[in-house]
Amino acid sequence: MTAPPPDGTLTEESYARAALTYLAEPADRWLNGLILVHGASRTLEAIRSGRLPDASGGAAVPRLMQRSMERWRVRLDELPTPDDVIAFRRSGIRLICPGDPEWPEQLADLGDEQPYALWLRGTADLRFNCLRSVAMVGSRAATAYGCYVAAEFAASVAARGWAVVSGGAFGVDASAHRGALGADGVTVAVLACGVDVPYPVGHAELLESVAAQGVIVSEWPPGRTVSRLRFLVRNRVIAALATGTLVVEAGERSGAVNTARHARDLGRRLMAVPGPVTSDQSAGCHRIIRDWQGTLVTNAAEVIEHLSPVGATLEPTHAPAVTDPADRAGSAEPADPAGPADPARPRSGRRRRVRPALDLDAMDLETTQLLDAMPARGGMAATRIAQRAGMVPTTAVRCLAALAASGFIERCDEGWRLSRG
Amino acid sequence: MTAPPPDGTLTEESYARAALTYLAEPADRWLNGLILVHGASRTLEAIRSGRLPDASGGAAVPRLMQRSMERWRVRLDELPTPDDVIAFRRSGIRLICPGDPEWPEQLADLGDEQPYALWLRGTADLRFNCLRSVAMVGSRAATAYGCYVAAEFAASVAARGWAVVSGGAFGVDASAHRGALGADGVTVAVLACGVDVPYPVGHAELLESVAAQGVIVSEWPPGRTVSRLRFLVRNRVIAALATGTLVVEAGERSGAVNTARHARDLGRRLMAVPGPVTSDQSAGCHRIIRDWQGTLVTNAAEVIEHLSPVGATLEPTHAPAVTDPADRAGSAEPADPAGPADPARPRSGRRRRVRPALDLDAMDLETTQLLDAMPARGGMAATRIAQRAGMVPTTAVRCLAALAASGFIERCDEGWRLSRG
Repeated sequence: MTAPPPDGTLTEESYARAALTYLAEPADRWLNGLILVHGASRTLEAIRSGRLPDASGGAAVPRLMQRSMERWRVRLDELPTPDDVIAFRRSGIRLICPGDPEWPEQLADLGDEQPYALWLRGTADLRFNCLRSVAMVGSRAATAYGCYVAAEFAASVAARGWAVVSGGAFGVDASAHRGALGADGVTVAVLACGVDVPYPVGHAELLESVAAQGVIVSEWPPGRTVSRLRFLVRNRVIAALATGTLVVEAGERSGAVNTARHARDLGRRLMAVPGPVTSDQSAGCHRIIRDWQGTLVTNAAEVIEHLSPVGATLEPTHAPAVTDPADRAGSAEPADPAGPADPARPRSGRRRRVRPALDLDAMDLETTQLLDAMPARGGMAATRIAQRAGMVPTTAVRCLAALAASGFIERCDEGWRLSRG
Repeated sequence: MTAPPPDGTLTEESYARAALTYLAEPADRWLNGLILVHGASRTLEAIRSGRLPDASGGAAVPRLMQRSMERWRVRLDELPTPDDVIAFRRSGIRLICPGDPEWPEQLADLGDEQPYALWLRGTADLRFNCLRSVAMVGSRAATAYGCYVAAEFAASVAARGWAVVSGGAFGVDASAHRGALGADGVTVAVLACGVDVPYPVGHAELLESVAAQGVIVSEWPPGRTVSRLRFLVRNRVIAALATGTLVVEAGERSGAVNTARHARDLGRRLMAVPGPVTSDQSAGCHRIIRDWQGTLVTNAAEVIEHLSPVGATLEPTHAPAVTDPADRAGSAEPADPAGPADPARPRSGRRRRVRPALDLDAMDLETTQLLDAMPARGGMAATRIAQRAGMVPTTAVRCLAALAASGFIERCDEGWRLSRG
């Protein structure tokens, strides 16, 4: 699913959130508190005026917050106009805010450290693609082994329809992006600078490829450059966006281990690739497996298996709902050696391809409703399907993703259709 | 502790057990059942006569057991005389049987697959050294990485007083033995042939070194050669002898994984060394960590930590039983940042070395009794200490090992003494 086409509107709240990304560093708890209580627009106004919105009779701002506000006011003259923000869209840079169709709802897990807004550049829809995504992170100074494994795993998971989220850095990050791109998959680069800033410079071309086939994400406004602290702040967004985080190669104290800690704290699935115990670059991975109970994974299939506890049940079983005894009697194939001990195992030697048996019990109600609303023949636009299912678009997007992941539906020119058995 | 000197006696039971190692392959449940019910001597007589010992009125032997007995009778003419067994001692080969001082009691965990007797060649006491031992196993076709890790880990654990148990084979086994020998440690080679058979031939010199500094163990009598099946049967003894098993490098279907399965089934601690996911030789290790919940270890300290759950508590804490407030007041060191949140952490910057605080609650009663029986000054022979503690020698050996492992006592010319603080 690709990103919605840009239009010419910008709400007051969205503009205010865009402005706040200029004024404050991300993950500011004071600022998120103000936004929560007063909304972004009145918060921006408060920063401009130096007075709290609801302070009855102009009560003084608490001293600690006063300091923050003074810091935010420093950049007031850098603020873009609403027209500037709209103009960004024409240059391929779009803004998304909480509640927007493309906003990934899982970012709410960051609580009072969630992004005020996100700047995006690229063709892929962030929300849809992150529904099935794996963050692949690791050392900038990765070994040949780390780079090989990152590219190999990324290509495999991307080929199976999983988006690869990483940080655009040298080493493991770059190999992960390249692996996904090489498999014609979607990859998401979460940067610690503006989405139009080619950092590192050596990755200018890679980042253009990511924008062309995936999406670049940043909490910082266009033009903003990196700083050491920003990398660490950025890591929590990588961990929050993805279904799970895989550490490919990392030293014991590294940015990747920092990202892994965020993933763990956010309750995301955490995995690590083992390596030689003689390699410092694998020490962080081993620590994660040993002490954090991260899951050791040795190939992409294990990554997907670990991230798909429900998907595994939804997977087509190729077992018909009704068995025709006459068909079996006429069959010369030997009895299945697995026998009744393993009823989940697909029976061998079937001659006719059958439609996947739907395990409706394993699906949630909304997914089932959406499946019922799919046209029996041909394709249909997602919005029309959502309408038929009596569902708000955001719910429909989630259900479409789950059904696509399970192989029940597939994309077509008109939108979506039932998979052809 | 070295092996007891040979003497010229041999009980009827011991001779019978020696004879049974000639007649039957190890781990025969029928035979162990007969020994359990009738004793080894009457079992040997039954095999000779072809009639069960207690069969009143000469009842027939059950058909299935009849077959086993016929198989055992095939080798009756190969039996040594009691004098032959005693003569072996003079050539450096000794026999141990259940109940002997050197018999490792943990072999009872093998149930009806326990060895009838063990043939030993070497200077080290098998029972004492296996009380703190780690089995290090792995592929014959080990990579340079596997051999390096095996030698490195073995040297480190051996230097800390842990015996290294392995199988004498090429690859990981040989590196483990060599590592332990190089650190002047004790190593135990459990062979699938007679203790006097140089197999593999290329390891003749290595096996002599093991005998000189450690001990060679076999369930098969002197002179018996290897067979494919014997390696697998042998593996259960490696797993049973050692406190825990470490798989250094192994393919998914390998003898080392077989040994690991025995260790797991026996309730022994199981560990594996990770390696590159691109190496087939690490696939077995990763499987053990991932699916069997074996512990990932990256160095020898982690191996010992994992095998010493009680030892860790017994370890000298260097914390005095009583804190002198005047001493602390006079100290210019900053407050411990760990604070009260981590009372187990040793406080930093102590100036005086103190005697280890004894955590008597963590010790079992017998170990405490033995510690009480230690002479306040100078050394004493183990037998005398056991006498003072009112303890049978076998229990005393176990307690001495635990106290030595924890650093409370050490060896001296006279036997054992309290460690010098």
